[in-house]
Amino acid sequence: MDDPVLVEVARGALVESRHRGAVAVSDADGRLAFALGDVTAPVFPRSAVKALQALVLFETGAADVYSLNEEELALACASHSGEPGHVAAVTRMLARAGLETSALACGAHWPASEAAARELARVGAPSALHNNCSGKHAGFLCDACAMGADPAGYWQPEHPVQRQVHAVLEDLTGAVLSDDRRGIDGCSVPTWAIPLQNLAHAFAKFATGHRLSPARARATERLRQACARKPWYVAGTGRFCTEIMQLFGTRVFVKTGAEGVYCGALPEQGLGIAIKCDDGASRASQAIMAALIARFLPLSEAERAALQAYIHPILLNWNRFDVGSLRVTDAI
Amino acid sequence: MDDPVLVEVARGALVESRHRGAVAVSDADGRLAFALGDVTAPVFPRSAVKALQALVLFETGAADVYSLNEEELALACASHSGEPGHVAAVTRMLARAGLETSALACGAHWPASEAAARELARVGAPSALHNNCSGKHAGFLCDACAMGADPAGYWQPEHPVQRQVHAVLEDLTGAVLSDDRRGIDGCSVPTWAIPLQNLAHAFAKFATGHRLSPARARATERLRQACARKPWYVAGTGRFCTEIMQLFGTRVFVKTGAEGVYCGALPEQGLGIAIKCDDGASRASQAIMAALIARFLPLSEAERAALQAYIHPILLNWNRFDVGSLRVTDAI
Repeated sequence: MDDPVLVEVARGALVESRHRGAVAVSDADGRLAFALGDVTAPVFPRSAVKALQALVLFETGAADVYSLNEEELALACASHSGEPGHVAAVTRMLARAGLETSALACGAHWPASEAAARELARVGAPSALHNNCSGKHAGFLCDACAMGADPAGYWQPEHPVQRQVHAVLEDLTGAVLSDDRRGIDGCSVPTWAIPLQNLAHAFAKFATGHRLSPARARATERLRQACARKPWYVAGTGRFCTEIMQLFGTRVFVKTGAEGVYCGALPEQGLGIAIKCDDGASRASQAIMAALIARFLPLSEAERAALQAYIHPILLNWNRFDVGSLRVTDAI
Repeated sequence: MDDPVLVEVARGALVESRHRGAVAVSDADGRLAFALGDVTAPVFPRSAVKALQALVLFETGAADVYSLNEEELALACASHSGEPGHVAAVTRMLARAGLETSALACGAHWPASEAAARELARVGAPSALHNNCSGKHAGFLCDACAMGADPAGYWQPEHPVQRQVHAVLEDLTGAVLSDDRRGIDGCSVPTWAIPLQNLAHAFAKFATGHRLSPARARATERLRQACARKPWYVAGTGRFCTEIMQLFGTRVFVKTGAEGVYCGALPEQGLGIAIKCDDGASRASQAIMAALIARFLPLSEAERAALQAYIHPILLNWNRFDVGSLRVTDAI
């Protein structure tokens, strides 16, 4: 089945590029409220499921043993921009478990924030702390220590931490995450391919706590509240995830993943959302998420106007001339 | 008509993302040697036609009046990486016409080269010289001066330089480039949408000089030779355009354009090539170009192996683990 065109990129009077994709919106019973394209094909969710991976912080007791605060819980769910505030908070998070930067196995890359990268270039080079996944990795290390497991190799599929992540993902998504569905993520931890309808179902459970044990339902609430109250720690300055949660607070949870994935939750509507842009373009998946929020959430005029800037952004060139726009199609 | 999937991006055992696109390969008489997808829809060629725009340097006499050398001719055809050698050469090029950086209207951006950008961040900020199009703009300024036109506004559609660019593009492509096909490029000059079959035809003429006046045929030869001899100036360190022309010399001309466009010429085969990836992904259009070169050019074993690294590159994560690969489909 061919996925439909969900986003067009216009230049002048013509469409210059097109993005196809698939979308699933589910309630906590697994009933689809909306679907476009193939929602049954397995999709690597990449970083879009960090909040589900972070549930293990509560199952292992790490969140309480190390008294992780809301900034740190948000960082465990984050693909952060490597700004100085992110780096400092991950350093503190590691210290809570008595660990140092050298324990992180995510690899180093320059900050995703251009400004932070330029600033860092003036004085040094990036470490694993600047990796957008360092908060998640610090969380995995806290998990290992709280479990009494050797933190070395915490990123490998057979390590107790990743086995528990696997169990949580299988339970929430209802998908069988067999080894032939397993890939290696950018930060070296396992990523399992999961159909969009299952991802949307998992995020509806995450949104509501329905069909979860009381303890796990409470854990989803703590993570949602942490991200809603400290959204800068989930992404960073000027980033969509941060700006959307700044705008909507606890009414919307959103999280990006590499290769055009977005997951989200609308707690008041009891809905979970999962998006995959076929070609991996995040400019498209972000616009689709904005359009889905506008479709399912009751909005004030100001909120609708704020979302419109993401649904139909004007594209400026290096001289800041208006040269075109990106727009979500009528399919959504 | 739906364009076919031409590139798949695999992670582990699964396809993670897919890129659709269209391809035209033409001879100088406009006969298609190969075509996939819709080759009749207008496509903004963006920077992929800089070598055709640079033909105006010979029509205005600027190339000879200002004694532009091969580095400077290659830069006029370039989307360079903003490395120090590129910036120095554009500065010299402007000086030949008695102009300074302030004459450039392309706008400033950080160097496309990560290393050059980090280095620059340690000492300052980018100017218009670092814009990947600054060589083309320096060429347009040389054109204006050689024509005796006011260089101010050289980037606007009604300026004599852009009118001559328009005439050259219409003549080579055989397409009618009406105002409703005109967009504004990233560097503010006009870009006209042109069907892939016409772009491929134009590059077959550029490859061979067939169906061109003797003077224009000689101009195409000088530009092809300049790019083949100074390929670093057409792109930069580690870039596909540079590495391909380093590998094949005068046997292959290739040039990338924004939003997933690639144009190329195979002079010995008398063929021109034009590629558009529907979603604008350059990772895909580059791999498609490599596959087309492998299909149409007789290759040594070493050349075939070198191309294979672009047709089917292994993807490494931040820890340099092999996590997947990009691969051109059997359609090509």
